[in-house]
Amino acid sequence: MELLSSTKTFGGWLKRYRHASTSVKGDMVFSIFLPPQAETKKVPVLYWLSGLTCTDENFTQKAGAFKKAAQLGLAIVCPDTSPRGTDYPNEHDSYDFGSGAGFYINATVEPYAQSYNMYDYVVDELPALISEHFRVNDKKSISGHSMGGHGALICALKNPNTYQSVSAFAPITNPTNCAWGKKVFTGYLGEDESSWQQWDATCLIQHATQRLELFVDQGDADDFLSKQLKPESLVKACFKNDHPINLRMQSGYDHSYYFIASFIDEHLDYHFDALK
Amino acid sequence: MELLSSTKTFGGWLKRYRHASTSVKGDMVFSIFLPPQAETKKVPVLYWLSGLTCTDENFTQKAGAFKKAAQLGLAIVCPDTSPRGTDYPNEHDSYDFGSGAGFYINATVEPYAQSYNMYDYVVDELPALISEHFRVNDKKSISGHSMGGHGALICALKNPNTYQSVSAFAPITNPTNCAWGKKVFTGYLGEDESSWQQWDATCLIQHATQRLELFVDQGDADDFLSKQLKPESLVKACFKNDHPINLRMQSGYDHSYYFIASFIDEHLDYHFDALK
Repeated sequence: MELLSSTKTFGGWLKRYRHASTSVKGDMVFSIFLPPQAETKKVPVLYWLSGLTCTDENFTQKAGAFKKAAQLGLAIVCPDTSPRGTDYPNEHDSYDFGSGAGFYINATVEPYAQSYNMYDYVVDELPALISEHFRVNDKKSISGHSMGGHGALICALKNPNTYQSVSAFAPITNPTNCAWGKKVFTGYLGEDESSWQQWDATCLIQHATQRLELFVDQGDADDFLSKQLKPESLVKACFKNDHPINLRMQSGYDHSYYFIASFIDEHLDYHFDALK
Repeated sequence: MELLSSTKTFGGWLKRYRHASTSVKGDMVFSIFLPPQAETKKVPVLYWLSGLTCTDENFTQKAGAFKKAAQLGLAIVCPDTSPRGTDYPNEHDSYDFGSGAGFYINATVEPYAQSYNMYDYVVDELPALISEHFRVNDKKSISGHSMGGHGALICALKNPNTYQSVSAFAPITNPTNCAWGKKVFTGYLGEDESSWQQWDATCLIQHATQRLELFVDQGDADDFLSKQLKPESLVKACFKNDHPINLRMQSGYDHSYYFIASFIDEHLDYHFDALK
């Protein structure tokens, strides 16, 4: 691993690394916040998955999460949102497909199948790397925003007993049924829609074997609410399958990091309670 | 005034406006955070001056200041850092001169003298505009970072009894004696160095008529510390002239917004105590 930067903040350290990834067959960059407590003992880890067009830095710069994380003694790992360094057809043409839109799934359509394996990267490869190199314990939780909220939900639902807790801000809850999801699933998985369902939180609920609560904050002034995010689909599936969900509709809030910042401390408290 | 955006955060509102400025003879953009308390009563205002290359948005996105400001009931106004929309010789050629480097002074050298009057804008025009359009009282304080820390210090020192308190993060304390300052003072004020001293905090200390404490945080891992910022010059002038200063050297911190975020809450508490 190559250390790109190391910045002191709130008595802890924010570090950025580049490393060769086997899952995505290329170099990846991630950021990790290590709270002061990590100087002397192993701390639990929250994985944060960002949204479309983001890198590891959107959360570290804008979420305002490190004061609370430093108080609690919680490490936060922020991966990038897609492989980088390739130049496939259409990979860099739009904000909602290809680079910056990895969608936390494993692609099966060539050429994306060669490297767009962000699910394997986030669920397996990155946590193994973090465990190997940092003073963290084996407890982890996961959260994210928008595309990353979708990612957090599917990672938790597909891996029972792996995460102590899961939360999401304005997640894409039903990607098989919205324009963003249809576009990337067609491009990464192909036209056969039956292959899409394993990457859709609303579809996965009916197969969930662990009753892990889904903690979701959603602004009601979010421009993407009705067309792309559709939390009502997830709620309906949870009710139907007796799966616990706490969806908090936040009055007046939009899709931005100003919304995330407003409630991130409550999410960190929620995760830390589960990680203790 | 034209409202550019309105974003709910921490129960308050972050609003961006464009308006025609008489001081700088062109359109200016600023951001204002209005805490929830401003819905029903007049609140005090902190003016925040950003550093080289910044706009009004660096602080709003990266400082993580709004949770505390919302708790206290403190408005925060963030002006842009220079006039925009002109195209003078060398105006856009370097990061430390011209656009993005207004330096919070009034230029006297043509063509910059035509519009680079950021001092008048920040001290007089903008506060008058804020008082006219928002539910704020007549109490104000000022703070800033790097070039903006310099700005905050000179605005407070040149205007006794105007600000209830002043603070700075990693300020340029003695611009007549560092490369950044010499470059912009030569360009905006001309070769006669005697005209520079009225815009230099370390020089102004000897004429200060109000014993307003200077509250300064400075990271000791700041790459600009010894060559550009030189807090020891300011401390020496304060000691010599019996002017109160609280310089906190913060171990391990650099020049970034991660440093500002780490201590901004303490600055907001400090200002609010003075503004009560």
